[in-house]
Amino acid sequence: MNIIVDAMGGDNAPKAIIDGCIEAINMQEGFKITLVGKSDIIQKILDENKYDKDRIDIVNATEVIEGDDTPTKAIKSKKDSSMVVGLKLIKENKGDAFISAGNTGALMTGALLLLGRIKGIDRPSLPALVPSKKNMVLLIDAGMNTVCRPINYLQFAIMGSIYMKLIYNIQKPKVGLLNVGSEDAKGNETLKNAFKMLSEGPINFVGNMEGNDITSGDIDIAVCDGYVGNVSLKLFEGAGSLLLNELKVIFTKNIITKLCYLLMKSAFKEFKTKFNADELAGAPVLGVKGLVIKSHGSSKAKTIRTAILKRAIPLVKCGVVNEIKNQFENMEVKPSDDEIR
Amino acid sequence: MNIIVDAMGGDNAPKAIIDGCIEAINMQEGFKITLVGKSDIIQKILDENKYDKDRIDIVNATEVIEGDDTPTKAIKSKKDSSMVVGLKLIKENKGDAFISAGNTGALMTGALLLLGRIKGIDRPSLPALVPSKKNMVLLIDAGMNTVCRPINYLQFAIMGSIYMKLIYNIQKPKVGLLNVGSEDAKGNETLKNAFKMLSEGPINFVGNMEGNDITSGDIDIAVCDGYVGNVSLKLFEGAGSLLLNELKVIFTKNIITKLCYLLMKSAFKEFKTKFNADELAGAPVLGVKGLVIKSHGSSKAKTIRTAILKRAIPLVKCGVVNEIKNQFENMEVKPSDDEIR
Repeated sequence: MNIIVDAMGGDNAPKAIIDGCIEAINMQEGFKITLVGKSDIIQKILDENKYDKDRIDIVNATEVIEGDDTPTKAIKSKKDSSMVVGLKLIKENKGDAFISAGNTGALMTGALLLLGRIKGIDRPSLPALVPSKKNMVLLIDAGMNTVCRPINYLQFAIMGSIYMKLIYNIQKPKVGLLNVGSEDAKGNETLKNAFKMLSEGPINFVGNMEGNDITSGDIDIAVCDGYVGNVSLKLFEGAGSLLLNELKVIFTKNIITKLCYLLMKSAFKEFKTKFNADELAGAPVLGVKGLVIKSHGSSKAKTIRTAILKRAIPLVKCGVVNEIKNQFENMEVKPSDDEIR
Repeated sequence: MNIIVDAMGGDNAPKAIIDGCIEAINMQEGFKITLVGKSDIIQKILDENKYDKDRIDIVNATEVIEGDDTPTKAIKSKKDSSMVVGLKLIKENKGDAFISAGNTGALMTGALLLLGRIKGIDRPSLPALVPSKKNMVLLIDAGMNTVCRPINYLQFAIMGSIYMKLIYNIQKPKVGLLNVGSEDAKGNETLKNAFKMLSEGPINFVGNMEGNDITSGDIDIAVCDGYVGNVSLKLFEGAGSLLLNELKVIFTKNIITKLCYLLMKSAFKEFKTKFNADELAGAPVLGVKGLVIKSHGSSKAKTIRTAILKRAIPLVKCGVVNEIKNQFENMEVKPSDDEIR
């Protein structure tokens, strides 16, 4: 198995990205990594570390797509960028997955333009996993599509169901439509039409859900447009950080509370981990002909390591891309003519 | 000052509502309460309590608008419902504020149809306050308008700025547009046009913001459509409940952690309060000709008490409705022709 990694993408690239790859290699056997980017810089950082040299290759790419580059323009003009070169390696079957912490819009656009959509899918989607009182919950879409038609919600739901089945072995993932109320007739026209489509779709649709149902753990998949999904995902991170902040205040109040913290340190470590973005790192672009994983823009070495070991490798093994291909080929999901919301 | 309260609205009505009113009366001087609803039932509950009988009146209303009633239909058909009667009392200046924990849609519709819009405002809004690392942050709209035009975002921003100035004495509240990224050109067409309008508006606009910026405390007002706002508000409650849940697990782990909890109980009380929906109770409908306050559907006595003492009374005193009237009368905010998102 060969995991292709964009060495130049993300706030802490290339150092943190390369360190993360080395950590992954040193922690687990059975796969190789191809680092894409400026080879001299990459080689220099690699040489500072101890690792099995046979397991990391470099493919040179002279350009870098920056965070503020315009997605389509960047993909079309920076043909020798680490992102474009990495995606092409996937297209040419020279790797099993491509991980990048770079410009999200550019990665989505690149995946679409260079790998192409799976037949039957109008809009590929970038989902995100968030913790709940029970299992992890999939938010789909989490930022790729800020305007959606009802048919898109249904396609998100189907792809999300396949994803949750494969990674968590949930046979019939419960799908909810993220809405402003739990009653059937809630929301704007798009949501009402999406509700109808989801009700008739080949999924386990449980109806409308509200924001607090994301964390209740009673559903497995929250379907929404990328605007709501992206705000929800980031608000969730923000709320977590706010509450941990408040806890810090409480625990540093006096000598007794400080003692309590020391006594409970280990317990809190688990707690923090659960709400740590690093642990939630790496979401696949679902609906394109290839496995592309977006890692957090602020990815540290640990984030990249997690994206490789806990996302890329399991997703390659379970063949999520082919599963989606097969299911959509054997199914007729026709775009509706509903107005765009 | 006379606060009119819908005795029949909400999951725990009428008992919890009436108990909340009595608590408020017994805690603070200087105002009266008019309870609207089935007088025999209300009287019976009142008689079970000790309070200053001169400070609570009853106005009889034979019908009740249920949670699953269709808003417009309910307001038009149930003319003798506690909600309609209560709103009419406001229209006839027989009270200074109307509080209801009943059907949100019906309350919004009723406020619009019976009290009417303030001139210059296309869409009244129901905002919500959420805690951040610094001050409270206003989410506007938080559920009243699930589809918005750019002009609506600007009007929300102006009303929100007046509201935050009056209740927290912030001279120039920082307004952010809740979006999928912080760069200027982010989001769909509606958001891009809203960004333009906000940039030119009579407000302190700081640009696009992301979900995690709600809790950072760097902005005072997050402007968004009611779909995103409502999901965000409820997700915030859900995330809080999830984290408190996790804390409970940690503190009940063993005898030492239990001891820690006892030692820190008081500190945690503040902590819980900050994230307790009861404390965030009661949001005014901004943009209608009268002060109407929506309290949480699951309002308990404490929620209603809070809505009366911490929302209704301060808002009557600062004259928020007239402030909005004056500002919009002295200003030209023309609706744009942008497409609905």
